[in-house]
Amino acid sequence: MAGEAPEGDTPRVSIIVSKGTLNMVFPPLILATTAASMGAEVTLYFTFWGIEALKKDGIKNLKVASVGNPALPMPNILGMLPGMTAIATRMMKGKVEEAGMGDPADLLDMCVEMDNVELVACTPTLGVMGIDEDDLIEGLTLAGAGYAMEQMFESDVQLFI
Amino acid sequence: MAGEAPEGDTPRVSIIVSKGTLNMVFPPLILATTAASMGAEVTLYFTFWGIEALKKDGIKNLKVASVGNPALPMPNILGMLPGMTAIATRMMKGKVEEAGMGDPADLLDMCVEMDNVELVACTPTLGVMGIDEDDLIEGLTLAGAGYAMEQMFESDVQLFI
Amino acid sequence: MAGEAPEGDTPRVSIIVSKGTLNMVFPPLILATTAASMGAEVTLYFTFWGIEALKKDGIKNLKVASVGNPALPMPNILGMLPGMTAIATRMMKGKVEEAGMGDPADLLDMCVEMDNVELVACTPTLGVMGIDEDDLIEGLTLAGAGYAMEQMFESDVQLFI
Repeated sequence: MAGEAPEGDTPRVSIIVSKGTLNMVFPPLILATTAASMGAEVTLYFTFWGIEALKKDGIKNLKVASVGNPALPMPNILGMLPGMTAIATRMMKGKVEEAGMGDPADLLDMCVEMDNVELVACTPTLGVMGIDEDDLIEGLTLAGAGYAMEQMFESDVQLFI
Repeated sequence: MAGEAPEGDTPRVSIIVSKGTLNMVFPPLILATTAASMGAEVTLYFTFWGIEALKKDGIKNLKVASVGNPALPMPNILGMLPGMTAIATRMMKGKVEEAGMGDPADLLDMCVEMDNVELVACTPTLGVMGIDEDDLIEGLTLAGAGYAMEQMFESDVQLFI
Repeated sequence: MAGEAPEGDTPRVSIIVSKGTLNMVFPPLILATTAASMGAEVTLYFTFWGIEALKKDGIKNLKVASVGNPALPMPNILGMLPGMTAIATRMMKGKVEEAGMGDPADLLDMCVEMDNVELVACTPTLGVMGIDEDDLIEGLTLAGAGYAMEQMFESDVQLFI
């Protein structure tokens, strides 16, 4: 079934991206590009470790968590070994490519280019992590929690990921 | 205080289930059965590792994450030892049973049987993970992110878990 | 940009706090105090490991997860060593203080004191974890999932964290 936005007002979607693992940055990018291609106005607010995805080349360096994830086919004791995070990450990227899903870096580029997607970097997070605006990709809004809340008040769908 | 849905239109609830650990599959099942018993229409969209819960006998094999969870009374170095995930899982299941809460497998069965709960398996996830429809329990809708988004546009409550 | 609530009815916000790590308790406290200071009515429903934050002195003892978090600048094999969770926690608290953000314990106090924030402890979680009402801070509502769902039905923004 092809997705379609409801008739009438343009729907608005606000998603908070709080985690810096490939497996938790991928879902908001899929949902944002899907919603935007259905005609919605989308705001992605990157905060805490989610900000990693907005660093220059950051999205390409995100990794899948190989421990603390019992659903991965790998016992914790193995997930601990140096290199296992890299293996889990390559495994996931390979499978995503095989299945013809978009690459996370391409999805982020789409978000930057789409007029109806706004990417926001959380300014207090930048301060806490000592990240400079120049370390980030272009085309971002810089704002704090008040702005995120405002967007959510005006949205039909709000998610924290 | 007994829960009651607001008067007027039937409320609609959409929950995305993205994780494959017992501790993160349990909350959406509790919320879904609670909302449905209050008269709401509920959609549970299983994606990424959440799909594990829809495999035949999958829900019985979910485990509690024993590492990366500082709130569990177990240091990381112990959580690493083979067998510790199983111990954390048994501990949680035992306590849940003691307290008279529903078993996750029973809650999933309830969701399948209730007319006002729809269980959806994310088709791209099935592709990425190489899972066949026959590997899954009966009574599921198969659909992609466009469908999930559509359900969320029409819902009063949307959660990503 | 200073945050402002939409004109007209008072907006309502419901947030479920399900995790017991400092990094996942901090965001709901920031969002709740931000929304409340913008005039919204806020309900925070603490469940599963989130209940740790409501124990007397619990908020001061929360820790940052040092494993299963590839975005932390620390390989898993080091995160495993005894003491590494404490180091990651001190590092985060230090940086938060440097940046002049509120301390999580202070934000929780603000929530208790604000008339438009309600803190709810999930009663089934208390049963499962064997926690007594006397173990918790003052000023809480005790209620179950039906109450949480009711609050969400009546809210404009619902988040699961």
